[in-house]
Amino acid sequence: MRKYQIKAPDVLLLSKFDPDDTGEFKKTPKDKDKAKTLAKEYIEKMDQLQERLYADGSRSLLIVLQGMDTSGKDSTIKNVMSGINPQGCQVVTFKTPSDQELKHDFLWRVHYKAPAKGQIGIFNRSHYEDVLITRVHKKISEKVTKQRFDQINEFEELLSENGTAIVKFFLYISKDEQKIRLEERINDPEKRWKFNAGDLEERKFWQEYMKAFEDMITSTSTEHSPWFIIPSNRKWYRNLLIAQIVVNVLENMKLKTPPEPPDIDFATLKIE
Amino acid sequence: MRKYQIKAPDVLLLSKFDPDDTGEFKKTPKDKDKAKTLAKEYIEKMDQLQERLYADGSRSLLIVLQGMDTSGKDSTIKNVMSGINPQGCQVVTFKTPSDQELKHDFLWRVHYKAPAKGQIGIFNRSHYEDVLITRVHKKISEKVTKQRFDQINEFEELLSENGTAIVKFFLYISKDEQKIRLEERINDPEKRWKFNAGDLEERKFWQEYMKAFEDMITSTSTEHSPWFIIPSNRKWYRNLLIAQIVVNVLENMKLKTPPEPPDIDFATLKIE
Repeated sequence: MRKYQIKAPDVLLLSKFDPDDTGEFKKTPKDKDKAKTLAKEYIEKMDQLQERLYADGSRSLLIVLQGMDTSGKDSTIKNVMSGINPQGCQVVTFKTPSDQELKHDFLWRVHYKAPAKGQIGIFNRSHYEDVLITRVHKKISEKVTKQRFDQINEFEELLSENGTAIVKFFLYISKDEQKIRLEERINDPEKRWKFNAGDLEERKFWQEYMKAFEDMITSTSTEHSPWFIIPSNRKWYRNLLIAQIVVNVLENMKLKTPPEPPDIDFATLKIE
Repeated sequence: MRKYQIKAPDVLLLSKFDPDDTGEFKKTPKDKDKAKTLAKEYIEKMDQLQERLYADGSRSLLIVLQGMDTSGKDSTIKNVMSGINPQGCQVVTFKTPSDQELKHDFLWRVHYKAPAKGQIGIFNRSHYEDVLITRVHKKISEKVTKQRFDQINEFEELLSENGTAIVKFFLYISKDEQKIRLEERINDPEKRWKFNAGDLEERKFWQEYMKAFEDMITSTSTEHSPWFIIPSNRKWYRNLLIAQIVVNVLENMKLKTPPEPPDIDFATLKIE
Protein backbone atom coordinates (compact mmCIF):
# COMPACT_ATOMS: atom_id res chain seq x y z
CA MET A 1 0.00 0.00 0.00
CA ARG A 2 2.71 2.42 1.08
CA LYS A 3 4.64 1.96 -2.12
CA TYR A 4 1.92 3.78 -4.05
CA GLN A 5 1.88 6.78 -1.71
CA ILE A 6 3.76 9.79 -3.00
CA LYS A 7 5.66 11.81 -0.47
CA ALA A 8 6.51 15.28 -1.69
CA PRO A 9 8.89 16.66 -2.71
CA ASP A 10 9.65 13.47 -4.61
CA VAL A 11 10.49 14.17 -8.18
CA LEU A 12 8.15 11.86 -9.88
CA LEU A 13 8.34 10.02 -13.16
CA LEU A 14 5.19 8.15 -14.02
CA SER A 15 7.28 5.95 -16.32
CA LYS A 16 8.74 4.41 -13.17
CA PHE A 17 5.28 3.13 -12.25
CA ASP A 18 3.57 0.26 -14.04
CA PRO A 19 -0.18 0.64 -14.67
CA ASP A 20 -0.31 -3.12 -15.07
CA ASP A 21 1.19 -3.75 -11.61
CA THR A 22 -0.76 -6.13 -9.38
CA GLY A 23 1.57 -6.17 -6.39
CA GLU A 24 1.89 -9.52 -4.67
CA PHE A 25 -0.97 -10.93 -6.76
CA LYS A 26 -0.32 -12.96 -9.88
CA LYS A 27 -2.44 -12.24 -12.94
CA THR A 28 -4.17 -15.61 -12.64
CA PRO A 29 -7.91 -16.27 -12.15
CA LYS A 30 -7.09 -17.74 -8.75
CA ASP A 31 -5.23 -14.65 -7.51
CA LYS A 32 -7.84 -12.37 -9.04
CA ASP A 33 -10.53 -14.16 -7.01
CA LYS A 34 -8.38 -13.91 -3.90
CA ALA A 35 -8.04 -10.16 -4.44
CA LYS A 36 -11.78 -9.79 -5.00
CA THR A 37 -12.58 -11.62 -1.77
CA LEU A 38 -10.14 -9.46 0.12
CA ALA A 39 -11.58 -6.29 -1.43
CA LYS A 40 -15.04 -7.35 -0.29
CA GLU A 41 -13.78 -7.67 3.28
CA TYR A 42 -12.28 -4.18 3.14
CA ILE A 43 -15.50 -2.77 1.71
CA GLU A 44 -17.48 -4.24 4.62
CA LYS A 45 -14.96 -2.79 7.03
CA MET A 46 -15.31 0.56 5.28
CA ASP A 47 -19.06 0.48 5.82
CA GLN A 48 -18.57 -0.09 9.57
CA LEU A 49 -15.99 2.68 9.80
CA GLN A 50 -18.28 5.04 7.91
CA GLU A 51 -20.89 4.43 10.60
CA ARG A 52 -18.34 5.44 13.22
CA LEU A 53 -17.42 8.54 11.23
CA TYR A 54 -21.09 9.48 11.09
CA ALA A 55 -21.61 8.87 14.79
CA ASP A 56 -18.41 10.65 15.79
CA GLY A 57 -19.65 13.68 13.86
CA SER A 58 -16.49 15.75 14.32
CA ARG A 59 -14.47 14.68 11.29
CA SER A 60 -15.00 14.14 7.58
CA LEU A 61 -13.21 12.32 4.77
CA LEU A 62 -12.57 13.64 1.30
CA ILE A 63 -11.67 11.19 -1.47
CA VAL A 64 -10.44 12.70 -4.74
CA LEU A 65 -10.47 10.65 -7.93
CA GLN A 66 -8.52 11.77 -10.97
CA GLY A 67 -7.42 9.97 -14.09
CA MET A 68 -7.71 9.92 -17.87
CA ASP A 69 -11.01 9.10 -19.48
CA THR A 70 -11.95 5.40 -19.02
CA SER A 71 -9.44 5.11 -16.16
CA GLY A 72 -12.28 3.89 -13.95
CA LYS A 73 -13.44 6.78 -11.79
CA ASP A 74 -17.14 5.93 -12.15
CA SER A 75 -16.43 2.24 -11.89
CA THR A 76 -14.43 2.71 -8.67
CA ILE A 77 -17.34 4.57 -7.10
CA LYS A 78 -19.78 1.90 -8.22
CA ASN A 79 -17.65 -1.05 -7.13
CA VAL A 80 -15.92 0.23 -4.02
CA MET A 81 -18.39 2.77 -2.63
CA SER A 82 -21.73 1.03 -3.28
CA GLY A 83 -22.60 -0.61 -0.01
CA ILE A 84 -21.78 2.48 2.00
CA ASN A 85 -24.83 4.01 3.64
CA PRO A 86 -25.79 6.80 1.21
CA GLN A 87 -26.82 8.95 4.16
CA GLY A 88 -23.15 9.35 5.05
CA CYS A 89 -21.70 9.65 1.59
CA GLN A 90 -21.91 12.31 -1.06
CA VAL A 91 -20.51 12.06 -4.58
CA VAL A 92 -19.76 15.27 -6.44
CA THR A 93 -19.06 15.17 -10.16
CA PHE A 94 -17.34 18.28 -11.41
CA LYS A 95 -18.19 19.08 -15.01
CA THR A 96 -17.20 22.04 -17.16
CA PRO A 97 -17.82 25.11 -14.96
CA SER A 98 -21.03 27.05 -15.56
CA ASP A 99 -21.03 30.75 -16.51
CA GLN A 100 -21.74 31.65 -12.90
CA GLU A 101 -18.96 29.40 -11.59
CA LEU A 102 -16.49 30.98 -14.00
CA LYS A 103 -17.23 34.33 -12.40
CA HIS A 104 -15.53 33.04 -9.23
CA ASP A 105 -12.11 31.67 -8.43
CA PHE A 106 -11.60 28.00 -9.33
CA LEU A 107 -11.90 26.80 -5.72
CA TRP A 108 -15.22 28.54 -5.04
CA ARG A 109 -17.51 25.77 -6.29
CA VAL A 110 -15.22 23.13 -4.83
CA HIS A 111 -15.17 24.59 -1.34
CA TYR A 112 -18.97 24.69 -1.29
CA LYS A 113 -19.06 20.94 -2.00
CA ALA A 114 -16.54 19.92 0.68
CA PRO A 115 -17.92 17.13 2.89
CA ALA A 116 -19.74 18.09 6.08
CA LYS A 117 -18.69 16.67 9.45
CA GLY A 118 -19.63 13.01 9.69
CA GLN A 119 -19.62 12.60 5.92
CA ILE A 120 -17.51 10.94 3.24
CA GLY A 121 -17.25 13.18 0.19
CA ILE A 122 -16.13 11.70 -3.10
CA PHE A 123 -14.94 14.05 -5.83
CA ASN A 124 -15.27 12.47 -9.26
CA ARG A 125 -12.84 14.85 -10.92
CA SER A 126 -12.10 17.92 -8.84
CA HIS A 127 -10.24 21.21 -8.56
CA TYR A 128 -7.32 19.33 -10.08
CA GLU A 129 -8.96 19.64 -13.51
CA ASP A 130 -7.96 23.30 -13.21
CA VAL A 131 -4.28 22.35 -13.39
CA LEU A 132 -4.80 19.57 -15.94
CA ILE A 133 -7.07 20.15 -18.93
CA THR A 134 -6.61 23.93 -18.71
CA ARG A 135 -2.86 23.54 -18.59
CA VAL A 136 -2.58 20.94 -21.35
CA HIS A 137 -4.56 23.21 -23.64
CA LYS A 138 -2.56 26.23 -22.54
CA LYS A 139 -5.56 28.10 -21.19
CA ILE A 140 -3.47 29.07 -18.17
CA SER A 141 0.15 30.18 -17.99
CA GLU A 142 2.88 28.31 -16.15
CA LYS A 143 2.90 31.12 -13.61
CA VAL A 144 -0.81 30.66 -12.89
CA THR A 145 -0.33 26.88 -12.72
CA LYS A 146 2.31 27.32 -10.06
CA GLN A 147 0.06 29.75 -8.17
CA ARG A 148 -2.79 27.27 -8.29
CA PHE A 149 -0.64 24.49 -6.85
CA ASP A 150 0.04 26.75 -3.87
CA GLN A 151 -3.61 27.76 -3.59
CA ILE A 152 -4.69 24.12 -3.68
CA ASN A 153 -2.19 23.21 -0.96
CA GLU A 154 -3.44 26.01 1.25
CA PHE A 155 -7.07 25.13 0.60
CA GLU A 156 -6.49 21.49 1.47
CA GLU A 157 -4.56 22.52 4.57
CA LEU A 158 -7.57 24.58 5.66
CA LEU A 159 -9.86 21.57 5.24
CA SER A 160 -7.40 19.33 7.00
CA GLU A 161 -6.91 21.67 9.96
CA ASN A 162 -10.69 21.77 10.33
CA GLY A 163 -11.13 18.03 10.62
CA THR A 164 -11.20 16.69 7.06
CA ALA A 165 -8.93 13.78 6.23
CA ILE A 166 -7.98 13.87 2.54
CA VAL A 167 -6.83 11.09 0.26
CA LYS A 168 -6.26 11.50 -3.46
CA PHE A 169 -6.11 8.75 -6.05
CA PHE A 170 -4.62 9.01 -9.50
CA LEU A 171 -6.02 6.08 -11.47
CA TYR A 172 -3.13 5.21 -13.75
CA ILE A 173 -3.90 3.31 -16.94
CA SER A 174 -1.70 2.82 -19.98
CA LYS A 175 -2.51 4.34 -23.35
CA ASP A 176 -3.00 0.84 -24.77
CA GLU A 177 -5.48 -0.01 -22.03
CA GLN A 178 -7.46 3.14 -22.82
CA LYS A 179 -7.61 2.05 -26.45
CA ILE A 180 -9.08 -1.31 -25.44
CA ARG A 181 -11.67 0.38 -23.20
CA LEU A 182 -12.70 2.95 -25.80
CA GLU A 183 -13.10 0.17 -28.37
CA GLU A 184 -15.32 -1.70 -25.93
CA ARG A 185 -17.59 1.35 -25.75
CA ILE A 186 -17.70 1.62 -29.52
CA ASN A 187 -18.47 -2.03 -30.10
CA ASP A 188 -21.24 -2.32 -27.51
CA PRO A 189 -24.36 -0.47 -28.75
CA GLU A 190 -25.60 -0.31 -25.13
CA LYS A 191 -22.53 1.68 -24.16
CA ARG A 192 -22.27 4.00 -27.15
CA TRP A 193 -24.23 6.79 -25.48
CA LYS A 194 -21.28 7.20 -23.10
CA PHE A 195 -18.98 7.93 -25.99
CA ASN A 196 -18.18 11.43 -27.06
CA ALA A 197 -15.85 12.66 -29.73
CA GLY A 198 -14.03 14.82 -27.18
CA ASP A 199 -12.56 11.70 -25.58
CA LEU A 200 -10.57 10.98 -28.74
CA GLU A 201 -9.36 14.57 -28.89
CA GLU A 202 -7.94 14.44 -25.35
CA ARG A 203 -6.25 11.12 -26.12
CA LYS A 204 -4.04 12.89 -28.64
CA PHE A 205 -2.53 14.84 -25.76
CA TRP A 206 -1.60 11.73 -23.73
CA GLN A 207 2.04 12.71 -23.18
CA GLU A 208 1.14 16.27 -22.17
CA TYR A 209 -1.41 14.86 -19.71
CA MET A 210 1.12 12.49 -18.17
CA LYS A 211 3.50 15.41 -17.71
CA ALA A 212 0.72 17.50 -16.13
CA PHE A 213 -0.18 14.62 -13.78
CA GLU A 214 3.45 14.23 -12.75
CA ASP A 215 3.74 17.93 -11.88
CA MET A 216 0.39 17.95 -10.13
CA ILE A 217 1.30 14.96 -7.96
CA THR A 218 4.76 16.29 -7.15
CA SER A 219 3.46 19.75 -6.27
CA THR A 220 0.41 18.80 -4.21
CA SER A 221 1.34 15.65 -2.33
CA THR A 222 1.54 16.70 1.29
CA GLU A 223 1.60 14.96 4.63
CA HIS A 224 -2.06 15.78 5.28
CA SER A 225 -3.21 15.33 1.69
CA PRO A 226 -1.21 12.63 -0.09
CA TRP A 227 -1.58 11.36 -3.62
CA PHE A 228 -1.61 7.66 -4.33
CA ILE A 229 -0.77 6.37 -7.77
CA ILE A 230 -3.09 3.45 -8.32
CA PRO A 231 -2.11 1.00 -11.07
CA SER A 232 -5.50 0.68 -12.77
CA ASN A 233 -5.18 -1.52 -15.82
CA ARG A 234 -6.53 -4.36 -13.68
CA LYS A 235 -9.82 -3.25 -12.19
CA TRP A 236 -9.75 -5.85 -9.43
CA TYR A 237 -6.37 -4.66 -8.17
CA ARG A 238 -7.43 -1.02 -8.40
CA ASN A 239 -10.55 -1.75 -6.32
CA LEU A 240 -8.60 -3.69 -3.71
CA LEU A 241 -5.93 -1.01 -3.30
CA ILE A 242 -8.44 1.82 -2.97
CA ALA A 243 -10.63 -0.05 -0.47
CA GLN A 244 -7.54 -0.90 1.55
CA ILE A 245 -6.22 2.67 1.61
CA VAL A 246 -9.59 4.20 2.51
CA VAL A 247 -9.97 1.73 5.39
CA ASN A 248 -6.49 2.60 6.56
CA VAL A 249 -7.22 6.34 6.50
CA LEU A 250 -10.49 5.86 8.41
CA GLU A 251 -8.77 3.68 11.00
CA ASN A 252 -6.11 6.31 11.54
CA MET A 253 -8.81 8.87 12.32
CA LYS A 254 -9.40 7.18 15.69
CA LEU A 255 -13.13 7.76 15.61
CA LYS A 256 -15.04 7.61 18.85
CA THR A 257 -18.63 6.98 19.80
CA PRO A 258 -19.96 10.32 21.03
CA PRO A 259 -20.42 10.65 24.80
CA GLU A 260 -23.83 10.24 26.44
CA PRO A 261 -25.89 13.44 26.63
CA PRO A 262 -24.89 14.94 30.01
CA ASP A 263 -28.36 16.30 30.80
CA ILE A 264 -30.07 12.89 31.01
CA ASP A 265 -29.99 10.52 33.98
CA PHE A 266 -30.23 7.19 32.17
CA ALA A 267 -30.33 5.15 35.38
CA THR A 268 -33.68 6.53 36.48
CA LEU A 269 -35.18 7.36 33.07
CA LYS A 270 -38.66 5.88 32.57
CA ILE A 271 -40.63 5.90 29.36
CA GLU A 272 -44.36 6.40 29.78
CA MET B 1 -48.44 -3.45 -2.17
CA ARG B 2 -51.45 -1.58 -3.50
CA LYS B 3 -53.33 -1.95 -0.26
CA TYR B 4 -50.92 0.44 1.45
CA GLN B 5 -51.27 3.13 -1.21
CA ILE B 6 -53.56 5.97 -0.25
CA LYS B 7 -55.69 7.42 -2.99
CA ALA B 8 -57.04 10.86 -2.13
CA PRO B 9 -59.58 11.98 -1.25
CA ASP B 10 -59.94 8.93 1.00
CA VAL B 11 -60.88 9.89 4.48
CA LEU B 12 -58.25 8.17 6.42
CA LEU B 13 -58.22 6.70 9.87
CA LEU B 14 -54.84 5.39 10.93
CA SER B 15 -56.61 3.20 13.46
CA LYS B 16 -57.83 1.12 10.51
CA PHE B 17 -54.22 0.24 9.72
CA ASP B 18 -52.14 -2.16 11.77
CA PRO B 19 -48.49 -1.18 12.34
CA ASP B 20 -47.86 -4.83 13.15
CA ASP B 21 -49.22 -6.03 9.80
CA THR B 22 -46.95 -8.38 7.84
CA GLY B 23 -49.21 -9.06 4.86
CA GLU B 24 -49.07 -12.59 3.55
CA PHE B 25 -46.05 -13.35 5.74
CA LYS B 26 -46.44 -15.07 9.08
CA LYS B 27 -44.46 -13.75 12.03
CA THR B 28 -42.28 -16.87 12.10
CA PRO B 29 -38.49 -17.06 11.67
CA LYS B 30 -39.08 -18.99 8.44
CA ASP B 31 -41.31 -16.35 6.88
CA LYS B 32 -39.07 -13.58 8.12
CA ASP B 33 -36.14 -15.19 6.29
CA LYS B 34 -38.27 -15.58 3.20
CA ALA B 35 -39.13 -11.86 3.30
CA LYS B 36 -35.49 -10.93 3.79
CA THR B 37 -34.41 -12.98 0.78
CA LEU B 38 -37.12 -11.39 -1.31
CA ALA B 39 -36.13 -7.90 -0.15
CA LYS B 40 -32.55 -8.62 -1.18
CA GLU B 41 -33.73 -9.50 -4.68
CA TYR B 42 -35.70 -6.26 -4.92
CA ILE B 43 -32.71 -4.27 -3.69
CA GLU B 44 -30.52 -5.76 -6.43
CA LYS B 45 -33.20 -4.96 -8.96
CA MET B 46 -33.32 -1.41 -7.60
CA ASP B 47 -29.59 -1.03 -8.15
CA GLN B 48 -29.98 -2.08 -11.80
CA LEU B 49 -32.90 0.27 -12.33
CA GLN B 50 -30.98 3.11 -10.74
CA GLU B 51 -28.29 2.58 -13.35
CA ARG B 52 -30.93 2.93 -16.06
CA LEU B 53 -32.30 6.08 -14.41
CA TYR B 54 -28.78 7.53 -14.41
CA ALA B 55 -28.18 6.56 -18.04
CA ASP B 56 -31.57 7.78 -19.19
CA GLY B 57 -30.76 11.16 -17.65
CA SER B 58 -34.18 12.71 -18.29
CA ARG B 59 -36.05 11.72 -15.13
CA SER B 60 -35.49 11.65 -11.39
CA LEU B 61 -37.02 9.94 -8.38
CA LEU B 62 -37.86 11.54 -5.05
CA ILE B 63 -38.44 9.31 -2.03
CA VAL B 64 -39.90 11.01 1.06
CA LEU B 65 -39.61 9.33 4.46
CA GLN B 66 -41.72 10.51 7.37
CA GLY B 67 -42.56 8.93 10.69
CA MET B 68 -42.33 9.33 14.43
CA ASP B 69 -38.95 9.16 16.11
CA THR B 70 -37.51 5.60 16.04
CA SER B 71 -39.94 4.64 13.25
CA GLY B 72 -36.94 3.59 11.17
CA LYS B 73 -36.18 6.36 8.70
CA ASP B 74 -32.39 6.06 9.12
CA SER B 75 -32.59 2.31 9.27
CA THR B 76 -34.60 2.13 6.03
CA ILE B 77 -31.96 4.20 4.25
CA LYS B 78 -29.19 2.02 5.64
CA ASN B 79 -30.88 -1.29 4.89
CA VAL B 80 -32.75 -0.61 1.68
CA MET B 81 -30.65 2.04 -0.01
CA SER B 82 -27.10 0.88 0.79
CA GLY B 83 -25.97 -0.98 -2.29
CA ILE B 84 -27.21 1.73 -4.61
CA ASN B 85 -24.39 3.47 -6.43
CA PRO B 86 -23.84 6.62 -4.33
CA GLN B 87 -23.09 8.55 -7.50
CA GLY B 88 -26.77 8.35 -8.42
CA CYS B 89 -28.27 8.82 -4.99
CA GLN B 90 -28.44 11.77 -2.65
CA VAL B 91 -29.84 11.72 0.88
CA VAL B 92 -31.03 14.99 2.37
CA THR B 93 -31.74 15.22 6.09
CA PHE B 94 -33.88 18.19 6.99
CA LYS B 95 -33.18 19.51 10.48
CA THR B 96 -34.57 22.52 12.30
CA PRO B 97 -34.37 25.36 9.75
CA SER B 98 -31.47 27.79 10.09
CA ASP B 99 -31.98 31.53 10.60
CA GLN B 100 -31.37 32.09 6.92
CA GLU B 101 -33.80 29.38 5.89
CA LEU B 102 -36.49 30.86 8.13
CA LYS B 103 -36.19 34.07 6.16
CA HIS B 104 -37.69 32.22 3.18
CA ASP B 105 -40.90 30.30 2.56
CA PHE B 106 -40.88 26.72 3.87
CA LEU B 107 -40.41 25.18 0.42
CA TRP B 108 -37.35 27.25 -0.46
CA ARG B 109 -34.70 24.98 1.07
CA VAL B 110 -36.60 21.90 -0.07
CA HIS B 111 -36.83 22.93 -3.70
CA TYR B 112 -33.09 23.55 -3.80
CA LYS B 113 -32.47 19.97 -2.68
CA ALA B 114 -34.82 18.32 -5.20
CA PRO B 115 -33.05 15.51 -7.07
CA ALA B 116 -31.36 16.37 -10.37
CA LYS B 117 -32.17 14.44 -13.54
CA GLY B 118 -30.74 10.94 -13.41
CA GLN B 119 -30.70 10.95 -9.60
CA ILE B 120 -32.59 9.34 -6.74
CA GLY B 121 -33.18 11.85 -3.96
CA ILE B 122 -34.11 10.60 -0.51
CA PHE B 123 -35.63 13.05 1.94
CA ASN B 124 -35.11 11.93 5.53
CA ARG B 125 -37.87 14.13 6.94
CA SER B 126 -39.02 16.83 4.52
CA HIS B 127 -41.32 19.78 3.89
CA TYR B 128 -43.96 17.68 5.65
CA GLU B 129 -42.40 18.61 8.99
CA ASP B 130 -43.89 22.03 8.29
CA VAL B 131 -47.40 20.62 8.63
CA LEU B 132 -46.52 18.23 11.47
CA ILE B 133 -44.37 19.44 14.34
CA THR B 134 -45.33 23.08 13.71
CA ARG B 135 -49.02 22.17 13.66
CA VAL B 136 -48.96 19.89 16.70
CA HIS B 137 -47.32 22.64 18.72
CA LYS B 138 -49.72 25.23 17.30
CA LYS B 139 -46.97 27.32 15.71
CA ILE B 140 -49.16 27.65 12.64
CA SER B 141 -52.92 28.23 12.37
CA GLU B 142 -55.33 25.80 10.76
CA LYS B 143 -55.71 28.27 7.93
CA VAL B 144 -51.99 28.25 7.23
CA THR B 145 -51.94 24.45 7.49
CA LYS B 146 -54.61 24.23 4.81
CA GLN B 147 -52.70 26.70 2.65
CA ARG B 148 -49.52 24.67 3.03
CA PHE B 149 -51.25 21.48 1.92
CA ASP B 150 -52.23 23.27 -1.29
CA GLN B 151 -48.76 24.74 -1.71
CA ILE B 152 -47.18 21.32 -1.23
CA ASN B 153 -49.51 19.78 -3.81
CA GLU B 154 -48.64 22.45 -6.33
CA PHE B 155 -44.92 22.16 -5.60
CA GLU B 156 -44.98 18.40 -6.07
CA GLU B 157 -47.01 18.80 -9.24
CA LEU B 158 -44.32 21.12 -10.58
CA LEU B 159 -41.63 18.52 -9.85
CA SER B 160 -43.75 15.77 -11.33
CA GLU B 161 -44.52 17.67 -14.53
CA ASN B 162 -40.80 18.26 -14.94
CA GLY B 163 -39.84 14.61 -14.81
CA THR B 164 -39.60 13.71 -11.12
CA ALA B 165 -41.46 10.62 -9.95
CA ILE B 166 -42.42 11.00 -6.29
CA VAL B 167 -43.20 8.35 -3.71
CA LYS B 168 -43.87 9.09 -0.04
CA PHE B 169 -43.66 6.67 2.85
CA PHE B 170 -45.20 7.09 6.25
CA LEU B 171 -43.42 4.64 8.53
CA TYR B 172 -46.18 3.63 10.89
CA ILE B 173 -45.19 2.21 14.27
CA SER B 174 -47.30 1.78 17.39
CA LYS B 175 -46.75 3.75 20.54
CA ASP B 176 -45.78 0.52 22.33
CA GLU B 177 -43.19 -0.26 19.69
CA GLN B 178 -41.68 3.19 20.12
CA LYS B 179 -41.39 2.51 23.83
CA ILE B 180 -39.45 -0.69 23.17
CA ARG B 181 -37.11 1.08 20.75
CA LEU B 182 -36.48 4.04 23.06
CA GLU B 183 -35.70 1.63 25.89
CA GLU B 184 -33.21 -0.17 23.64
CA ARG B 185 -31.41 3.12 23.10
CA ILE B 186 -31.37 3.83 26.81
CA ASN B 187 -30.09 0.41 27.78
CA ASP B 188 -27.31 0.20 25.22
CA PRO B 189 -24.48 2.61 26.23
CA GLU B 190 -23.24 2.51 22.60
CA LYS B 191 -26.55 3.97 21.44
CA ARG B 192 -27.16 6.53 24.16
CA TRP B 193 -25.61 9.38 22.18
CA LYS B 194 -28.57 9.10 19.80
CA PHE B 195 -30.95 9.82 22.61
CA ASN B 196 -32.21 13.27 23.28
CA ALA B 197 -34.71 14.45 25.83
CA GLY B 198 -36.80 16.07 23.10
CA ASP B 199 -37.83 12.61 21.84
CA LEU B 200 -39.71 11.98 25.07
CA GLU B 201 -41.41 15.37 24.83
CA GLU B 202 -42.77 14.65 21.36
CA ARG B 203 -43.98 11.23 22.49
CA LYS B 204 -46.44 12.96 24.82
CA PHE B 205 -48.19 14.36 21.74
CA TRP B 206 -48.66 10.92 20.12
CA GLN B 207 -52.41 11.33 19.48
CA GLU B 208 -51.98 14.84 18.09
CA TYR B 209 -49.25 13.55 15.76
CA MET B 210 -51.43 10.69 14.52
CA LYS B 211 -54.18 13.18 13.75
CA ALA B 212 -51.70 15.45 11.93
CA PHE B 213 -50.39 12.48 9.91
CA GLU B 214 -53.94 11.48 8.96
CA ASP B 215 -54.73 14.98 7.69
CA MET B 216 -51.41 15.27 5.91
CA ILE B 217 -51.87 11.95 4.10
CA THR B 218 -55.48 12.70 3.18
CA SER B 219 -54.65 16.18 1.91
CA THR B 220 -51.50 15.44 -0.05
CA SER B 221 -51.96 12.00 -1.57
CA THR B 222 -52.28 12.59 -5.28
CA GLU B 223 -52.10 10.48 -8.42
CA HIS B 224 -48.59 11.74 -9.19
CA SER B 225 -47.38 11.86 -5.58
CA PRO B 226 -49.00 9.13 -3.48
CA TRP B 227 -48.48 8.34 0.17
CA PHE B 228 -47.96 4.77 1.28
CA ILE B 229 -48.65 3.78 4.87
CA ILE B 230 -45.93 1.27 5.71
CA PRO B 231 -46.58 -0.96 8.71
CA SER B 232 -43.20 -0.62 10.41
CA ASN B 233 -43.25 -2.50 13.69
CA ARG B 234 -41.49 -5.35 11.85
CA LYS B 235 -38.37 -3.98 10.22
CA TRP B 236 -38.07 -6.87 7.78
CA TYR B 237 -41.58 -6.28 6.44
CA ARG B 238 -41.02 -2.53 6.24
CA ASN B 239 -37.81 -3.06 4.22
CA LEU B 240 -39.47 -5.51 1.88
CA LEU B 241 -42.47 -3.28 1.19
CA ILE B 242 -40.38 -0.20 0.53
CA ALA B 243 -37.94 -2.01 -1.76
CA GLN B 244 -40.87 -3.51 -3.64
CA ILE B 245 -42.66 -0.18 -4.09
CA VAL B 246 -39.52 1.69 -5.18
CA VAL B 247 -38.78 -1.01 -7.77
CA ASN B 248 -42.35 -0.76 -9.00
CA VAL B 249 -42.13 3.03 -9.36
CA LEU B 250 -38.80 2.78 -11.23
CA GLU B 251 -40.19 0.11 -13.56
CA ASN B 252 -43.19 2.28 -14.38
CA MET B 253 -40.86 5.08 -15.44
CA LYS B 254 -40.04 3.11 -18.61
CA LEU B 255 -36.41 4.23 -18.63
CA LYS B 256 -34.49 3.98 -21.87
CA THR B 257 -30.82 3.75 -22.78
CA PRO B 258 -29.97 7.08 -24.40
CA PRO B 259 -29.52 7.06 -28.18
CA GLU B 260 -26.07 6.95 -29.78
CA PRO B 261 -24.47 10.35 -30.34
CA PRO B 262 -25.63 11.30 -33.86
CA ASP B 263 -22.38 13.01 -34.85
CA ILE B 264 -20.20 9.89 -34.68
CA ASP B 265 -19.94 7.22 -37.38
CA PHE B 266 -19.27 4.18 -35.21
CA ALA B 267 -18.86 1.83 -38.18
CA THR B 268 -15.73 3.53 -39.44
CA LEU B 269 -14.37 4.94 -36.17
CA LYS B 270 -10.73 4.00 -35.50
CA ILE B 271 -8.80 4.65 -32.32
CA GLU B 272 -5.17 5.62 -32.84
